[in-house]
Amino acid sequence: TGLPEVLEVRKLACFRPLKVPSNLLILYSLRVFFSPMLFQIDHFGFAEDRTFKQRYLIADQHWKKDTGSILFYTGNEGDIAWFANNTGFMWNVAEEFDAILVFAEHRYYGDSLPFGNKSYTDAKHLNYLSSQQALADFAVLIQHLKNTIPGTENTPVIAIGGSYGGMLAAWFRMKYPHIVIGALAASAPIWQFDSLVPCGSFYKIVTEDFKKSGAGCSETIQNSWAAIKRIVDTEKGLQWLSHTFRLCSPLKTKTDVINFREWLRGTWIYVAMVDYPYEAAFLQPLPAWPVKAICKYLKNPKLPDRLLLQNIFQAVNIYYNYTGHASCLNLTQTTTKSLGLRGWSYQACTEMVMPMCSDGINDMFEPQKWDFHAYSEECFKAWGVRPRPSWIPTFYGGKNISAHSNIIFSNGGLDPWSGGGVTKNITDTLVAIMIPEGAHHLDLRSNSPFDPTSVLQARLLEVHYMKLWLQKHERVKTCPK
Amino acid sequence: TGLPEVLEVRKLACFRPLKVPSNLLILYSLRVFFSPMLFQIDHFGFAEDRTFKQRYLIADQHWKKDTGSILFYTGNEGDIAWFANNTGFMWNVAEEFDAILVFAEHRYYGDSLPFGNKSYTDAKHLNYLSSQQALADFAVLIQHLKNTIPGTENTPVIAIGGSYGGMLAAWFRMKYPHIVIGALAASAPIWQFDSLVPCGSFYKIVTEDFKKSGAGCSETIQNSWAAIKRIVDTEKGLQWLSHTFRLCSPLKTKTDVINFREWLRGTWIYVAMVDYPYEAAFLQPLPAWPVKAICKYLKNPKLPDRLLLQNIFQAVNIYYNYTGHASCLNLTQTTTKSLGLRGWSYQACTEMVMPMCSDGINDMFEPQKWDFHAYSEECFKAWGVRPRPSWIPTFYGGKNISAHSNIIFSNGGLDPWSGGGVTKNITDTLVAIMIPEGAHHLDLRSNSPFDPTSVLQARLLEVHYMKLWLQKHERVKTCPK
Repeated sequence: TGLPEVLEVRKLACFRPLKVPSNLLILYSLRVFFSPMLFQIDHFGFAEDRTFKQRYLIADQHWKKDTGSILFYTGNEGDIAWFANNTGFMWNVAEEFDAILVFAEHRYYGDSLPFGNKSYTDAKHLNYLSSQQALADFAVLIQHLKNTIPGTENTPVIAIGGSYGGMLAAWFRMKYPHIVIGALAASAPIWQFDSLVPCGSFYKIVTEDFKKSGAGCSETIQNSWAAIKRIVDTEKGLQWLSHTFRLCSPLKTKTDVINFREWLRGTWIYVAMVDYPYEAAFLQPLPAWPVKAICKYLKNPKLPDRLLLQNIFQAVNIYYNYTGHASCLNLTQTTTKSLGLRGWSYQACTEMVMPMCSDGINDMFEPQKWDFHAYSEECFKAWGVRPRPSWIPTFYGGKNISAHSNIIFSNGGLDPWSGGGVTKNITDTLVAIMIPEGAHHLDLRSNSPFDPTSVLQARLLEVHYMKLWLQKHERVKTCPK
Repeated sequence: TGLPEVLEVRKLACFRPLKVPSNLLILYSLRVFFSPMLFQIDHFGFAEDRTFKQRYLIADQHWKKDTGSILFYTGNEGDIAWFANNTGFMWNVAEEFDAILVFAEHRYYGDSLPFGNKSYTDAKHLNYLSSQQALADFAVLIQHLKNTIPGTENTPVIAIGGSYGGMLAAWFRMKYPHIVIGALAASAPIWQFDSLVPCGSFYKIVTEDFKKSGAGCSETIQNSWAAIKRIVDTEKGLQWLSHTFRLCSPLKTKTDVINFREWLRGTWIYVAMVDYPYEAAFLQPLPAWPVKAICKYLKNPKLPDRLLLQNIFQAVNIYYNYTGHASCLNLTQTTTKSLGLRGWSYQACTEMVMPMCSDGINDMFEPQKWDFHAYSEECFKAWGVRPRPSWIPTFYGGKNISAHSNIIFSNGGLDPWSGGGVTKNITDTLVAIMIPEGAHHLDLRSNSPFDPTSVLQARLLEVHYMKLWLQKHERVKTCPK
């Protein structure tokens, strides 16, 4: 049942070994595929009947027909090869699960562009960028794989994803339980919507990370905002600031200054997200425990403005220039180019409306209320669309998800996104795993000798639950009909 | 959580008492509402940001805040007032459930037209007619009701529907279990797709109905096809046929004859669907057990062509002219105008692709294979769209739905659609109820002294399961958090 015939899988190229830090154990050769023209650009309407090619990666060295499973990475907002390289967990457990690994690229990211280089032209071309369309792609892809890879017809599939991909994994199990027997949703802030959680939790957790990582650290950042205000008051100060921060484009206008402050805020957020216990290169190449490394420069919150801001630069410089290769700092390039920030900006302006606020008391940021109206105006200016803040909870259930089953929600205590995550068991089969020493989906990364015990335990538990689902599946399979 | 504020429910008019057969117990005054402009025309894309008004009917005389529930009719392809009038079951049980009854009209039917009288203009305007969009409307409507009717915030909702509406009820529970605690899906052929069931089952069941209802009956119909072929071979025969059947427009072309045969086939199907044990007026005003009434004219399959076809006319005339008011028979008006056949034709050409075939051996129809290619061509000609035959099973799970819960699938043994229905229990909470003497969703109709025991038992069972869901819901509610 399901798909049209034809559907010869086309192997376009052998995958070139990826340049990865040595602590990532890419033991397999990974093959790149593009789906046949199977994927409707619009799964939910029929006026647009064109199709597109979705990219996906497959590693099947450990696949065993009779006992195996498919571990399916629900790709999120970026290049799928980059995610495959930062999801060592799947590679580490492939043999244990006799598994085929599949990494599916999310539409509108990487090479999976529905309208080629016109995909981002306007709201009309972007109209098919949504979580629902992506989940439908995954469903069609899995049916396609089962129809074309001999022996996989009855192979159970488990969805795995992190961050937005973790939300997709959880939602995939909720909406397509006939296609995946369970989901590992790592650092998936499925409740970071509407008023399901306090809008301040995110910045509070970022602040706590910096507090924990060095005396005076969060206070120094807290004091930096006023210092900047005072410095940029004069033309000379503005020049000094641009020079001190080695900015590629010097600050000139008020908007530049606003962007600068937002860039700083973003930097602290990103560092907190990737506060991993070892050297890694996820969003940027970084030392082990980068927040600690940064806080070494931020011990004295009482320094005069210029000295304090010079220290802030040293701190920021760790995030943007750990390799020492950057000749200047660019406010618009905040992470690896593999991350699709443009697409995410559109998604945040449509479905993915995550209210955020800071008060400057419980957090180290400038006070900023959640202003939906202003947010909506900005979205309309940027993309010609209006966000719909209650659609995600309406469609995916908000906090009322107990009717579903077989989802692991893992969260890191250091991860700002954990504030919007599921951190307590909901039922026997909707379980939460907390990793107090973990940053953003640390559990999905490859095993490392530097891993804290909590993440090793988390991975063991995850494997345990996944095996339970598989056992149950096989028990059902062998029962007489 | 969920919806924007504002949202004053606008009571547009008091409902005029509906003209209904006396055996329908409409004990309540029904109020008509139009939703505020809440309903996105496109729930799944953001380029089309306009909204529309959905019509819904409410009866709340039996509503009790602390113990009550909401029984929510998931409207299908027609005028919602007509469905409300033919769903006496809900009226009969309203008091027992302290319930608010809600009947929600399906978009593109009745008065719920997204683009007003332009809604059916072309494929572009029809693009938002789909089951997914309709389910999203229902979800938004329920949230709206809970936000605006005081005391309903925590009221459990049960979805109820018949036929396509029964599919919607089942799918609503599958996709939105956070919104409805369970669903009664009456005569819902959720498996009449792709190759989930044999394409011949439908016509086979129609044939069995006629076989059971009188000796010689199905054979007479079976023989009529060849008789028609012989008669229309001459111009005179064609005239005789048009005259004998009192057709409003005489048959002239080959296409007319094809349409005539299809009209006959459709007539037998419709009569089988509404083979109720009492006088009723669902698709047309009809006597009790209309198939039996028809078969009284079809006792002698061996008659010469003209005599046989005269009898066929007498039979057909029961369906089209039981009231005696029809001055001629119109091939294009086969059912009540409340049924939205045009919209359904579009839906059948997009999502709702239900393969049908006959072989003339196991059924009384002319042999006709399922020809997807020809079907697709016709759809493209008629609507400018191509059907996607595997999308419904991909999206809603096909036969693999055991991960869901709290759905009652009821089916009538006389109903041709039962061939595509769930007629055996899948799990403890996905249960099937068979009504051997029932036609199309007889169980949803009002209690009648002529009801066979099997439908009375079915209704009791349905109430029993619905109460179980409510009990469980209340148990969960009263547990300490």
